[in-house]
Amino acid sequence: MADNLPEGLSERLRFDGAGLIAAVIQDAENDQVLMMGYMNDVALARTLSTGRVWFWSRSRQEYWRKGDTSGHIQLVRSVELDCDGDCVLVRAVQVGAACHTGKRSCFESGGPLAAVVGQAE
Amino acid sequence: MADNLPEGLSERLRFDGAGLIAAVIQDAENDQVLMMGYMNDVALARTLSTGRVWFWSRSRQEYWRKGDTSGHIQLVRSVELDCDGDCVLVRAVQVGAACHTGKRSCFESGGPLAAVVGQAE
Repeated sequence: MADNLPEGLSERLRFDGAGLIAAVIQDAENDQVLMMGYMNDVALARTLSTGRVWFWSRSRQEYWRKGDTSGHIQLVRSVELDCDGDCVLVRAVQVGAACHTGKRSCFESGGPLAAVVGQAE
Repeated sequence: MADNLPEGLSERLRFDGAGLIAAVIQDAENDQVLMMGYMNDVALARTLSTGRVWFWSRSRQEYWRKGDTSGHIQLVRSVELDCDGDCVLVRAVQVGAACHTGKRSCFESGGPLAAVVGQAE
C-alpha cells in the first residue's frame, strides 16, 4: 500500500482548502452512479495502489476504506482524473450496497427531486 | 425561473462552508459521467425550475448556466439527492461536449490514472 502519489501526479491535482478532491464512484457493471466522497492525497494514493476505494471522511476526520465495517467493498476497475484536477471518477465493482442505508446507490436513498424537464429550444 | 428552493428542500441539504453542494452530471442517454461541478441554493433552485443545468463557478465566483457561451447546453432529465444531502446527481441530455476542452466528458480529458485493479479476496 502506497501513501505517496505516483511521480508527477500531485502537480495535476487541485486540492481544495481542506486538501481534498471529490471522488465519484460509478458501478463498473451497470454504469449506475453509486456515491460521491472525498479523497486527500493519501486516500487517492491508497485507492490507486490497493485495488480498494479509500476516502477521507470529512465528518469523522479519518481514513475510510469502503466496506471495512459493512463488508460492502468497492473493487477498483479504473480511475480517471477530470480536466481541472479536482475530481476523480472511479469505476468499481460494488459488493452489496454502496449506501449506508442499504440502498444500492446513495442517490436512490435521497431520492428524486421535483424538476422541470429541459426541452431543446 | 425560481431562485428559491421548493418548500422543505433546504432542510434536507447539507451545504459546505462555502454554501455549496456537489453536482454530478450524468449523460441521460448513455450513462457516461460527464462532469462534476458545484451548486449553491440558487443554482440548484434554477436547475430544478428551468430544465437547464446551473452551477456556481468557484473560480469565477459567479453563476454559470452550462452552455451559454459554448452552446453545449445540458437539458435536465432528473435530479436526485444523495443520502446525506451534500450531492445531487443530475441526469441530462448533453448537447455537444461537456468539457471545455472539447471532449465529451471532463474525465476523458484528464484521462486514466495508473491503478491496481481490485480482486475479491
